[in-house]
Amino acid sequence: MDPELKKILEDAKAAQRSLARVDAAQRSAGLGAIAERLSAARAEVLAANAEDLARATDLDAAMTDRLRLTPARLDGVVAAVRAVRDAPDPLAEERFMTQRPNGLRVFRRRVPLGVIAVVFEARPNVTVEAAALTLRSGNAVVLRGGKEAARSNAALADVVRAGLVDAGLPAEVVGFVRDLARERVVELLGATGLVDLAIPRGGASLMRLVDAHARVPVVRHGAGVCHLYVDAAADPAMAESIAFNAKVQRPGVCNAMETLLVHADIAPEALPRIARRWAEAGVSMRVDPRGAEVLGAAGVAFEPATDEDWDREFLSLTAAVRVVPSFDEAVRHIDAHGTQHTAAIVTQDAQAAERFLASVEASCVLWNASTRFNDGGELGLGAEMGISTSRMHAFGPMGARELTAEKFVVRGDGQVRG
Amino acid sequence: MDPELKKILEDAKAAQRSLARVDAAQRSAGLGAIAERLSAARAEVLAANAEDLARATDLDAAMTDRLRLTPARLDGVVAAVRAVRDAPDPLAEERFMTQRPNGLRVFRRRVPLGVIAVVFEARPNVTVEAAALTLRSGNAVVLRGGKEAARSNAALADVVRAGLVDAGLPAEVVGFVRDLARERVVELLGATGLVDLAIPRGGASLMRLVDAHARVPVVRHGAGVCHLYVDAAADPAMAESIAFNAKVQRPGVCNAMETLLVHADIAPEALPRIARRWAEAGVSMRVDPRGAEVLGAAGVAFEPATDEDWDREFLSLTAAVRVVPSFDEAVRHIDAHGTQHTAAIVTQDAQAAERFLASVEASCVLWNASTRFNDGGELGLGAEMGISTSRMHAFGPMGARELTAEKFVVRGDGQVRG
Repeated sequence: MDPELKKILEDAKAAQRSLARVDAAQRSAGLGAIAERLSAARAEVLAANAEDLARATDLDAAMTDRLRLTPARLDGVVAAVRAVRDAPDPLAEERFMTQRPNGLRVFRRRVPLGVIAVVFEARPNVTVEAAALTLRSGNAVVLRGGKEAARSNAALADVVRAGLVDAGLPAEVVGFVRDLARERVVELLGATGLVDLAIPRGGASLMRLVDAHARVPVVRHGAGVCHLYVDAAADPAMAESIAFNAKVQRPGVCNAMETLLVHADIAPEALPRIARRWAEAGVSMRVDPRGAEVLGAAGVAFEPATDEDWDREFLSLTAAVRVVPSFDEAVRHIDAHGTQHTAAIVTQDAQAAERFLASVEASCVLWNASTRFNDGGELGLGAEMGISTSRMHAFGPMGARELTAEKFVVRGDGQVRG
Repeated sequence: MDPELKKILEDAKAAQRSLARVDAAQRSAGLGAIAERLSAARAEVLAANAEDLARATDLDAAMTDRLRLTPARLDGVVAAVRAVRDAPDPLAEERFMTQRPNGLRVFRRRVPLGVIAVVFEARPNVTVEAAALTLRSGNAVVLRGGKEAARSNAALADVVRAGLVDAGLPAEVVGFVRDLARERVVELLGATGLVDLAIPRGGASLMRLVDAHARVPVVRHGAGVCHLYVDAAADPAMAESIAFNAKVQRPGVCNAMETLLVHADIAPEALPRIARRWAEAGVSMRVDPRGAEVLGAAGVAFEPATDEDWDREFLSLTAAVRVVPSFDEAVRHIDAHGTQHTAAIVTQDAQAAERFLASVEASCVLWNASTRFNDGGELGLGAEMGISTSRMHAFGPMGARELTAEKFVVRGDGQVRG
């Protein structure tokens, strides 16, 4: 392993051990200091981000959008750090489980995981949000961002570490890997004994690296082929509003809708109004034959969908559209093509909604709400370390609580086993 | 992949999907039927076990003990299945998390993990307990036991599958791999897309196989270098009773104590009485120099400890013994040599006990109770799939709840993201 990376990891491990002995108030003070530092350093951070953006001439629109920091987005990051500070301390939780017939009292108590490596791509806000959540949960984090955001990430890491020092906490609980060689990612993924959990956030090429090299436990933030199903009993105006938001409001992110499924009974009424609204916003549509009939009759432009379109994460103003003959076919389509990320139903039929919420396999299932809400902040976690699309350890947005484990605590008065 | 193994896994996956649609009552009925079948098949199971034991001439005492089924142990397995049946259904749990300012109501709902592969060594009761817990939690299981228990495991798997059929459930939710080639384990560990979680239960050679070949998520049931610390403020009679139980009651299992740490202030009083009681039961002791002084003065026989002894899982009537100068040194010793499995303190000092419970890194920490209680049944889980010694997904004994994940369920009335 690269000696500099090894030092970052060993320092993080040692710092985490001392952080584990620090009380919640001091960790909260650290979070407050990070928010203060970030508020004060807006100009430097935006300048670093402008440099990154100036160099990012070969990025597509989605990547550029994810890279971009604005004053409003920075406000959002500061607010996220304060929300994490004000959220309950996950380490304070000790819960009673049971008293056994022999008198033993069994409890569970949350403990940190240790050192968490986060490997991410364009979004620089991950630097701060990951640091905030790991600090809240008593962990250390080692961050390895993408090269396109190198200056933004470095500026933000400096701010975070200054905040930690302000609060008397070891800066090493937030490690930052400046070396952008791909080999460092391979080393992080293989650092058994130094990394307790790796969270890769990115596209297919990063996930292939994980498949080939991961030796440490991994929680994947995988691709989001997110579905919106407009049921036969949907309110067409609500369907239009949610479809527009899910596709158009921020198309470059993982919880944006990629595929719209519309029940055949309501398609003639609902699909043209959704499609017209989309077309005004520049959305291009890849449509199945039954949808093509409906849109053709309504005079809305579209292209025919190919088989591959049902599995694509467009991350752009493109949507796949299919008219389904039944509720069950919608669920089957999501099972076959979804990535267990996000699925939403629009319907006034509570029974259909509950069936959908129970049977669709996704980290977040929504009824009468935009897919865009599958986000740690929006779901009340304050921020998120990523959205787990596998069921191991966490499923869906990971907040501070998902960065802990529960040990068993047993209190007795001399019990022995018979 | 071996075609027969592939078919077992594919059948398990398909059967799990249909099990996911079955209600809790029918899963409970399946558990009841398994318990009935097992009660009725005692003679056949014991006969198969006797055949395994007759062939197991090269096993050590610990392995032989783990392999052995007795009428009492079979009673325990039947009771465990009924306890799992009567425990709350983890899939019924939907809990309210929060209502957001925009009116969205956020819930979490438990879902099964999918297909779980359990690779285990000598203990045949794992066949039944793993099947019971996966059925309770809506999962499928594929079992690959050790060759020494082949006949016992096959007999138990037949009983379990007959019980499933009695209750109208697909027998394929419990897959049983009869082929004992090592290559099948390698294939199970690499079966991405077919196996959602692998639980290896075994010694160092199995764990090396996992390190080299695992591509699916793994929760390890690792070695148990378990510690008992007799604090300065211990009740000597209680210390003797717990030390005796922790070492002697069943030395071949993972939660048996391996290392005894005794505070120097109480060592002259507590250590000789523990050692005399152990010596009567045939326990041999590997003792550090300070302990040697105490035991020498008391006239108890012992050997000097080597450096390696502090990291050994003896699994036999051998114990490492060290006299420590302080509470802090005891905690440091456990941090350095423990396997995050089990650690217990004996003390009348509540403050010392709480410091120990908070600061020792182990899946189960106990105050005034034997290490032998770190067991799913003893801690109220009904049974266990293994004891996780890493913090990912589960930490400590894994019951039915640990075989599920929580998805986010969101109910709205048309919310879109601004």
